[in-house]
Amino acid sequence: MLKHGGDLDIIEKTYNISKDKIIDFSGNINPLGISKKIENVIKNNINIITTYPDKNYTALKKSISYYCKCNENNIIVGNGATEIISLFIKNLSPKNAIIVSPSYSEYERELKNINCNIKFFHLKEEENFLLNIDNLLTIINDNIDLLILCNPNNPTGTAINNEQIKILLSKCKFLMIDETYAEFSNEKENICATKLVNDYDNLFVVRGTSKFFAVPGIRLGYGICKNENILYKINKHKDPWSVNSIANLIGITMFNDEEYIQKTRDLIFSEKQSILKQLSNIENIKFYNSNCNFILCKILNNKTTSTKLFENLIKENILIRDAKNFTFLDATFFRFCILSKKNNQLLIEKLKNILL
Amino acid sequence: MLKHGGDLDIIEKTYNISKDKIIDFSGNINPLGISKKIENVIKNNINIITTYPDKNYTALKKSISYYCKCNENNIIVGNGATEIISLFIKNLSPKNAIIVSPSYSEYERELKNINCNIKFFHLKEEENFLLNIDNLLTIINDNIDLLILCNPNNPTGTAINNEQIKILLSKCKFLMIDETYAEFSNEKENICATKLVNDYDNLFVVRGTSKFFAVPGIRLGYGICKNENILYKINKHKDPWSVNSIANLIGITMFNDEEYIQKTRDLIFSEKQSILKQLSNIENIKFYNSNCNFILCKILNNKTTSTKLFENLIKENILIRDAKNFTFLDATFFRFCILSKKNNQLLIEKLKNILL
Repeated sequence: MLKHGGDLDIIEKTYNISKDKIIDFSGNINPLGISKKIENVIKNNINIITTYPDKNYTALKKSISYYCKCNENNIIVGNGATEIISLFIKNLSPKNAIIVSPSYSEYERELKNINCNIKFFHLKEEENFLLNIDNLLTIINDNIDLLILCNPNNPTGTAINNEQIKILLSKCKFLMIDETYAEFSNEKENICATKLVNDYDNLFVVRGTSKFFAVPGIRLGYGICKNENILYKINKHKDPWSVNSIANLIGITMFNDEEYIQKTRDLIFSEKQSILKQLSNIENIKFYNSNCNFILCKILNNKTTSTKLFENLIKENILIRDAKNFTFLDATFFRFCILSKKNNQLLIEKLKNILL
Repeated sequence: MLKHGGDLDIIEKTYNISKDKIIDFSGNINPLGISKKIENVIKNNINIITTYPDKNYTALKKSISYYCKCNENNIIVGNGATEIISLFIKNLSPKNAIIVSPSYSEYERELKNINCNIKFFHLKEEENFLLNIDNLLTIINDNIDLLILCNPNNPTGTAINNEQIKILLSKCKFLMIDETYAEFSNEKENICATKLVNDYDNLFVVRGTSKFFAVPGIRLGYGICKNENILYKINKHKDPWSVNSIANLIGITMFNDEEYIQKTRDLIFSEKQSILKQLSNIENIKFYNSNCNFILCKILNNKTTSTKLFENLIKENILIRDAKNFTFLDATFFRFCILSKKNNQLLIEKLKNILL
């Protein structure tokens, strides 16, 4: 089973296709790749690998603090959002947690590793996967130590705004929000919870860099939180140098790269509009409005399944995400991310051919 | 307190010396730096950061397996030896452990994190810090779940051979050997325990790359073990991509770089001989024979201390390791590593001036 969109090595072996030829609509990676600026920074500083990274990551935290408009002391950096999520969950050590679901599978894995009881709050298809806050509140009680939310959510693309987040914060002991896709959203300002960190002691925001900055290979994530108790525990237990020197250097540069950030957002917005317009002309597809750089679709034609669609497309080197393995989804759902105009058009044409 | 030799950022701030000007005899890093080969591999493959590393690290494990002559399936890779040590200790979860000491402080930190009872087995100055196996055996009993040994040992430079290791393996439940410095040893074949992994289910060998390959910035370490139970647990709990794409690529290349490996060993051997000869002419210094790329010394002149010596030298941009903070050592001990011929001569001259 493909648990992660980016498992290109498995695809290569299973379907006998060279990795380099795959057009990857499954990995949710910014199609712009890295900027010339980042490329040059690496080329000009290769010797940085002969020294340990700064254990305090002072310059990196400064850069993140500028980017997220938050206090440097409230930041922890780690080996991808994965390490941040793991560190937070291990050190909070909740007995009972709720995951808003379908969502990214890593939360469940980490909670299981510490034998936490997990409840899934079901985002319903009939509600277009929008979070029903009122219903969620009915199951939050004093026994629930942690609520986990991906916002905007993977794979549904749905999001809640700051006012809704505040309601949840007032009702739950601890709220972890994974904002891996927040920077792609047209509603970024309205959605991002980083500015709430100063006011809430029970909020932990997780950010990755793999998707938006197209750098899954550097393994750089960060967490933002004001709670001194949890920050102390995490810092006490974490590996001192889990972000390597090159990731550290790239991070310091990347968060200030305004041109790249704007270019990315412009591309994703305009392509998303264009794709959604065309999808609405394919009768057998239903799509869900997305705040992310990907779109979740449902196949309405019962002659095919997400798995068959996946198999059809991979033969043409096109890799989408068969979404049937997400909790609460089934073999009518697939997800694809926004790539270059040319590639997006290619996918749309293929979908038309198969599904019309 | 400087817990780690490489804390150049702290030195920079404390002594107001630019990091780049410091001649670092404290970090134990191979003075050759990285080879042209590694530099080119990075320059020609920068785009690798836009993809996730292979989650199975197949090519990297193959390269390590060739280098260490061990089975690929017995290898785990991680974010520096630090992550490997942490994963092993957390997943073995010993209740009682013995650390042969003085040694690297990280073992103690990790054992404390899981509330393990720690006994220190004292390497004695009057025995030139050589491990007294007979004495050690008297305290190993059924209650001891883990024995930890750095071989050759940091900071003493002392080592035990394969026959001695076999005796320990026959008497203790689990033995972890940290071989961070083994590749520097003239007695490498006689010391390295990697070839024993196939025959012993209770042996876990830890290796780093920071020191020998001069790449502390990439964060790459590995563990070699045959015990299926512990390998299963570690693989289940570890972060899937803790070695980043560039570290993965460098690792694949580096372990096959025979020329660099030989050049390093030649330099360290010849310089060590030359340094030891000169040290033996400084009356007020006692040194301990070393299997590593560093030498532990004792100041016999009671007019100065390791701290004063450190302070004297740092004023001239020379950074040695004041060894007083190691368990069982005191302010008469200092450690320095072997750098280029020119730098080594500079240090020897300074030591002569201060101590003669």
